Amino acid sequence: MNSTAIKDCTQQEIDQAIADSKNAFEIYRTKTLSDRAALLQTIASNIEKESEILIQTAASETHLSAARLKTELIRTIFQLKSYAAHCVSGQWLDVRINTADPNRNPPKPDIRKMLIPLGPVAVFGASNFPFAYSTAGGDTASAFAAGCSVVVKAHPAHVETSRLMATIIEKSITDCGLPAGLFKHIEGASNAVGECIVKHPSIAAVGFTGSLSGGRQLFNWGNERKIPIPVFAEMGSINPVFVLTEKMQQDGQSVAKSLAGSITLSMGQFCTNPGIILVENNPALNDFLEHLKNAFDDFAPTQMLHEGIAHSYREKQKLALQQEQVSVLTTVNSEDNTLQVNPSLVITDAVSFMQNEILKQEVFGPFSIIVVCNNKDQMSEVAQTMEGQLTATLIGTANELSASRDLINTIQQFAGRIIFNGVPTGVEVCLAMQHGGPYPASTDSRFTAVGGDAIRRFARPVCFQNCADELLPPELQNSNPLDIWRTVNDIPGKDKIINR
Amino acid sequence: MNSTAIKDCTQQEIDQAIADSKNAFEIYRTKTLSDRAALLQTIASNIEKESEILIQTAASETHLSAARLKTELIRTIFQLKSYAAHCVSGQWLDVRINTADPNRNPPKPDIRKMLIPLGPVAVFGASNFPFAYSTAGGDTASAFAAGCSVVVKAHPAHVETSRLMATIIEKSITDCGLPAGLFKHIEGASNAVGECIVKHPSIAAVGFTGSLSGGRQLFNWGNERKIPIPVFAEMGSINPVFVLTEKMQQDGQSVAKSLAGSITLSMGQFCTNPGIILVENNPALNDFLEHLKNAFDDFAPTQMLHEGIAHSYREKQKLALQQEQVSVLTTVNSEDNTLQVNPSLVITDAVSFMQNEILKQEVFGPFSIIVVCNNKDQMSEVAQTMEGQLTATLIGTANELSASRDLINTIQQFAGRIIFNGVPTGVEVCLAMQHGGPYPASTDSRFTAVGGDAIRRFARPVCFQNCADELLPPELQNSNPLDIWRTVNDIPGKDKIINR
Repeated sequence: MNSTAIKDCTQQEIDQAIADSKNAFEIYRTKTLSDRAALLQTIASNIEKESEILIQTAASETHLSAARLKTELIRTIFQLKSYAAHCVSGQWLDVRINTADPNRNPPKPDIRKMLIPLGPVAVFGASNFPFAYSTAGGDTASAFAAGCSVVVKAHPAHVETSRLMATIIEKSITDCGLPAGLFKHIEGASNAVGECIVKHPSIAAVGFTGSLSGGRQLFNWGNERKIPIPVFAEMGSINPVFVLTEKMQQDGQSVAKSLAGSITLSMGQFCTNPGIILVENNPALNDFLEHLKNAFDDFAPTQMLHEGIAHSYREKQKLALQQEQVSVLTTVNSEDNTLQVNPSLVITDAVSFMQNEILKQEVFGPFSIIVVCNNKDQMSEVAQTMEGQLTATLIGTANELSASRDLINTIQQFAGRIIFNGVPTGVEVCLAMQHGGPYPASTDSRFTAVGGDAIRRFARPVCFQNCADELLPPELQNSNPLDIWRTVNDIPGKDKIINR
Repeated sequence: MNSTAIKDCTQQEIDQAIADSKNAFEIYRTKTLSDRAALLQTIASNIEKESEILIQTAASETHLSAARLKTELIRTIFQLKSYAAHCVSGQWLDVRINTADPNRNPPKPDIRKMLIPLGPVAVFGASNFPFAYSTAGGDTASAFAAGCSVVVKAHPAHVETSRLMATIIEKSITDCGLPAGLFKHIEGASNAVGECIVKHPSIAAVGFTGSLSGGRQLFNWGNERKIPIPVFAEMGSINPVFVLTEKMQQDGQSVAKSLAGSITLSMGQFCTNPGIILVENNPALNDFLEHLKNAFDDFAPTQMLHEGIAHSYREKQKLALQQEQVSVLTTVNSEDNTLQVNPSLVITDAVSFMQNEILKQEVFGPFSIIVVCNNKDQMSEVAQTMEGQLTATLIGTANELSASRDLINTIQQFAGRIIFNGVPTGVEVCLAMQHGGPYPASTDSRFTAVGGDAIRRFARPVCFQNCADELLPPELQNSNPLDIWRTVNDIPGKDKIINR
């Protein structure tokens, strides 16, 4: 692991970095939406130019394949461009204008509201997405779009990649004529560095992608401060998949194939990896399990991201297998290597699953538990005991889904995204995306970590009462000079305001 | 005080109340937006019918005048109707739809997102607003609009009023054919009751209006839970007012009169009460202070809400006056009575103010500190040291305000609402309102406690991926059967979706 080679930044270095970030924020927050979008576009284009070295470096640090990393880098570039487009569209600003009524008694004031940036944002990236959810990932991009400066704590598992990316972001900031402090890169292997960053009085919000224990720690630090700050931690999830019987009978083989693909994709190292498959005991089940085994057996294991993750996988896999009424459906043996693990499908019954908290914990990697329910009622019962999840998936025929309104209703209570006849891996970057869910999937289910609405995590509303037009931010001026969507007297539109 | 007469609900009673609330929530959350609006309308109309007894009871418990309470009751009724209207308009649902593109590689899924209710909401009302921010106040109304059930912890300072209001809400729920558990009224004078409510696993969010110490305590309890929940505490604020010199010279008398009126309104017992008035040392200052004194002296003190508030006022007033370089500008002596206090204006210089944390604390009641600055630069310097505030007010001529862009910029960093040439008291109920500000004004500056957006505090997004149209909630269906505003492929509108 690289982490041993990383030296912790000193308290003084951290203080200096955050002071620089705060100063840069004071300048950046006054820049226009277009200025922010230009920065994101420039970062995107500078990353594109350095694709080759970025992919090489990340491949050597993370053991992810060059093909997978290329896809991820394309996604990262797309994300940056997408946040640039959302930023200038201004919809995320939630502009609301209620115009005055001088004839009311008492006179009704003119009130205009929009979101403004919170301040320097600390970003803790994910080990499993060295590009898309790390140094130049979604948190950094959405914070820049919101008008915030960014302090990244480099992930110890891909510090060289992070350094490279930091250099690209720094160059882009210079290219755009923005203050250098807008992006700061802090290194450290110990928790003390993270604590020091989160508790720094000038840090205004935190974005994190990773484990439940790590996310909860940052969340606690953020809330223990004299002035608490929002901590957006996107954490673990076991992403239940409900496979209904008629669909299993009709399309068992293709369902099994796509599920096995989703479980093993990138060695299962996705937060949306399907960790539980719920099925009803039915005559087609044996064939379905056979199809799953076959699809799984075709899979060629690769190395895990780092030793820590491989070790944790083995421990949790072992623990799950030690539980009563849990048996192995199939295991793919891989070579003897500290970074290699054996992908597994295991099987248990609904009652054993519901009674055992250990089986509800995420096993991060290519592992899934098949939970056999006596019938659909029991499937609903299991659904009712689910903790918060990023996703839940329903696989069924049109008739079955129509008859599953209650189940869909239950699922809504614990999941952020509900997928119909698909797999949970593959998180579309679009405004309608919700990537986040009730705790422990994330610390704040009211916000998303993916899609245009992610910008709103790093902003808060301010309203102006009876302010002269020329003193208002352009977003709120009568003439709507930025041509953005605004809600004027409760109606959305782009019209100018006249007769004020 | 009534609090001595209140018996704490037992743990068992609280558990039962919250269990009932959870069960009612499971039914209520599936009701339509119109059903929710009908409930709010019914509560409004039932309150109207009981106005007389409500005002009588509240007057005897709070010592607020019948006239003031009548205005507040009208506001409360308006709020309920306003949340009903916002609820059915559906804008707060933040519907976003990105339709599928089967020709993209990989195929782009159809994704549709909307807000759904969080669950049972605990409401802790304010002593200073026995109607508008208590049992049937803004938090309860916005939680019902969001689709949540409500558990109110009755305020010990107006428990009879709270009981009456609870009966009206309960009757309204019956009138609407909704489950009785939708509203539960819990009594208790000790903190243990509050802790028990906030830490109950079925409580999903908390709304609070009151002191900093009380709000922070609830916030800590909410975050210490195994599954943390959002706590929206709207707390103290000193609401600085910046009076610029040219305006003072031109309109000193009328500015002084309106400020004195705002400071003494309802014995200063408003969270938006102006607690600091910043002025420049200038030739018109003496006249302005004289005008303030005169306006203040005309004021006839009435009783404070309860002994606790009167006692705390006296202590904090005494403490402020003991500080170096603080002198009394004027005091209005009131009769000797445990509920009576002496309204005061005191004066100090900017350096003494900036160096002394005690002077920055809220003195809840008819009290304000005039802070004399050497010049406008020093005024900006004071602004830069301000803690989070609900409001800040700028009073100046058009020319002065135009020359104050830097000051306006600074003020945005600590305030939720910026008022120009007005007073901070009087919080308009409209969509553009922001009532909330950076900590310690509130625990979550990203949300408002007043206006249609307050509904969003009690909801979270869920998205549906590739869901059949008939299985979607009506809000997300192609035909837009509720005729609500939705953002479809990034463009707001009300159109049906065709060619899906």
